[in-house]
Amino acid sequence: MLRKIANPARLLTFQRTMASTASTGPLVRTELDSQTGYATVILNRAPVNSLSLEFMAEIIKTVDELERSKIRGMILTSPSSKVFCAGLDVLEMVNPSEDRLRSVWRNLQDTWAKLYGTSFPTVALINGHAPAGGCLLALTCEYRIMCSNFSIGLNETQLGLAVPPWLQKTMRNTVGSREAEIACIKGTMFSSEEALKIGLVDELAADKGEAMHKACNYLDTFKNMSPYARSATKLLLRNKKIEDMKRAREDDIDRVVKNVMNSDFQAGLAAYLQSLKDRKK
Amino acid sequence: MLRKIANPARLLTFQRTMASTASTGPLVRTELDSQTGYATVILNRAPVNSLSLEFMAEIIKTVDELERSKIRGMILTSPSSKVFCAGLDVLEMVNPSEDRLRSVWRNLQDTWAKLYGTSFPTVALINGHAPAGGCLLALTCEYRIMCSNFSIGLNETQLGLAVPPWLQKTMRNTVGSREAEIACIKGTMFSSEEALKIGLVDELAADKGEAMHKACNYLDTFKNMSPYARSATKLLLRNKKIEDMKRAREDDIDRVVKNVMNSDFQAGLAAYLQSLKDRKK
Amino acid sequence: MLRKIANPARLLTFQRTMASTASTGPLVRTELDSQTGYATVILNRAPVNSLSLEFMAEIIKTVDELERSKIRGMILTSPSSKVFCAGLDVLEMVNPSEDRLRSVWRNLQDTWAKLYGTSFPTVALINGHAPAGGCLLALTCEYRIMCSNFSIGLNETQLGLAVPPWLQKTMRNTVGSREAEIACIKGTMFSSEEALKIGLVDELAADKGEAMHKACNYLDTFKNMSPYARSATKLLLRNKKIEDMKRAREDDIDRVVKNVMNSDFQAGLAAYLQSLKDRKK
Repeated sequence: MLRKIANPARLLTFQRTMASTASTGPLVRTELDSQTGYATVILNRAPVNSLSLEFMAEIIKTVDELERSKIRGMILTSPSSKVFCAGLDVLEMVNPSEDRLRSVWRNLQDTWAKLYGTSFPTVALINGHAPAGGCLLALTCEYRIMCSNFSIGLNETQLGLAVPPWLQKTMRNTVGSREAEIACIKGTMFSSEEALKIGLVDELAADKGEAMHKACNYLDTFKNMSPYARSATKLLLRNKKIEDMKRAREDDIDRVVKNVMNSDFQAGLAAYLQSLKDRKK
Repeated sequence: MLRKIANPARLLTFQRTMASTASTGPLVRTELDSQTGYATVILNRAPVNSLSLEFMAEIIKTVDELERSKIRGMILTSPSSKVFCAGLDVLEMVNPSEDRLRSVWRNLQDTWAKLYGTSFPTVALINGHAPAGGCLLALTCEYRIMCSNFSIGLNETQLGLAVPPWLQKTMRNTVGSREAEIACIKGTMFSSEEALKIGLVDELAADKGEAMHKACNYLDTFKNMSPYARSATKLLLRNKKIEDMKRAREDDIDRVVKNVMNSDFQAGLAAYLQSLKDRKK
Repeated sequence: MLRKIANPARLLTFQRTMASTASTGPLVRTELDSQTGYATVILNRAPVNSLSLEFMAEIIKTVDELERSKIRGMILTSPSSKVFCAGLDVLEMVNPSEDRLRSVWRNLQDTWAKLYGTSFPTVALINGHAPAGGCLLALTCEYRIMCSNFSIGLNETQLGLAVPPWLQKTMRNTVGSREAEIACIKGTMFSSEEALKIGLVDELAADKGEAMHKACNYLDTFKNMSPYARSATKLLLRNKKIEDMKRAREDDIDRVVKNVMNSDFQAGLAAYLQSLKDRKK
């Protein structure tokens, strides 16, 4: 079972060793099935889809375009066979300029808000590990299908970061208050099977093919349904939560700046990165 | 297993074929057991207890009277062996006058508020199908006992109607946020057994007699309890939700008017009613 | 299985027969393990840790001191082998002066707020019955370990007291809205096993030694974690609830005064105390 520190560490190793690898193609690829009206959105920032400022801007832009083109559903996934999304790019947190850090967190808020508030149905096809921001992306979707043998969770505290209230609330709305509080405090990473058990994901799949089949099944549920009734029902409550986040977003950013620019946090991060280098020797 | 469209269609068939059947007696009958102080409230609008403006007014009036007569408990049920309550009367939604539609929705809000905020304990004895507004009535009660082989759920989206926020929240308080969101979006109808599993009902019963026995057992719990402590504990949180609904009730009504008077909605409803007529041939 | 009235009655018997027994030592004892940084806080008001005005003041003072001394974790427990904490001292409710009653309830609010909002991790080691205020103390902690063969629950309504909204909400955040509402209304006492099943406690233990071992395991989770990220994640949502309570605290106190000083409540309490005396004969 993959759990906690072990796993993010490994992801981070990927991240750092391959950070200079040029991504092939655009940061986000969209494949539209014109027959069904379903768009597959492929997070494409090699090697582990870590969320940089520009990558998040691209995700936001993609969702905006999909809203305009009136698609009937979206499947969010990764081309990697190991990582769905590794969360915030650690490089954005190593001695950042305050301006850049503010923009990064603002884009994280907007990425969450945009995906959480889509009018069309959304499925996360989690075909790899999904720590921190990777779990965030999955939580914004309406439905989650996860391949076996991976891990998912909000493990921010393990890295010295507090989990913001709007993200904790999204976790609560998914797995319940009790399970969410303790998981956020401990920074628990759940195996696919554990995630299914507590309701963090809705279905498991043996492989990506099966997961894609199940994702389409979810979207097919709405084939004959009035898009208005569907999206209004979804958004009457979700929009309220998005407004709550937006009302408090500056305080949220101020808090993150203090958290990340604190010397203890930076020292912890440096020690952590050094331990990864040492491990590689 | 009875699910989704299949079932409301059948209910609607009843509704339309028997709409001209004169109900015998008053729209709501109340039987008071003077020994226990328990009132059985029998929804009596044949054939399927669909909620018309006048029927809802009668339910509200009945609850007001029961509050005044200081009963010790209420059991809400139906004389039908097939339907608990079929939800809003579809005829109220076919090309309605705006004024009438506004009054209908206001009465639905008030029916919910009145039943949700009773000082005395309430049990829904669900001896038949309970789609949409039927599920709403059940959700307002403190305790739900359901006979086997029926279906229950908020299937509004299946008919092109958005589920109002106050009703979604009542569903969430019963089955949890996650289960409620997906059920409201999909318009899921649950079998009695499924409803028990997710906590949408509290107990199953083989027949109405057994259900009545269990309903009295619930009410007996409070036999020796201070009515004040009981109702204050219940209402300290429920009243807050009722106030929230009332504060936003005009926006809620405006939204419903737009939803129902939209030509797409009316076209969908007309096609649906035609399909029922065709099926009968 | 110990349930409802049976159990508080027995606790109360202890309370009254031994009320004059002088407690040995201070009302709250603290044992600090200088190696781990964990403090064991021992509720020490014999015989049943019933919450008097002065006892609650002592608990609040203890937590304040622990915050200042930057401990790494707290275990809350009782020296009794039968009772964790019997809840509010009934003697505080028998014909109280209004001033004293107001102070008692204010201290109960503050005890809850102080324990609910600790920056350090907290574990309730529930080695005995925990009705009403005893359950409240357990609910404020982050984690609950309960010895077998005891009972726990918010049974206030059984004694004629309404459960205040802030306490009901804490219960909801632990066991979910549905389970909490019905448990608060009925005043349900749960056996250790039932409490585990609904999530009211997190783990069971055969005896206090095993429970202590498990409590330390929970605290050890945070050994290598940044205290800032941990406590910020916990408090970003908990502080909001504490503020909500404080904003409404005067109304809450007014309500309790009306409840307790009502002649029906006093008559019920007197009859109850008399029944205990009669039983002892």
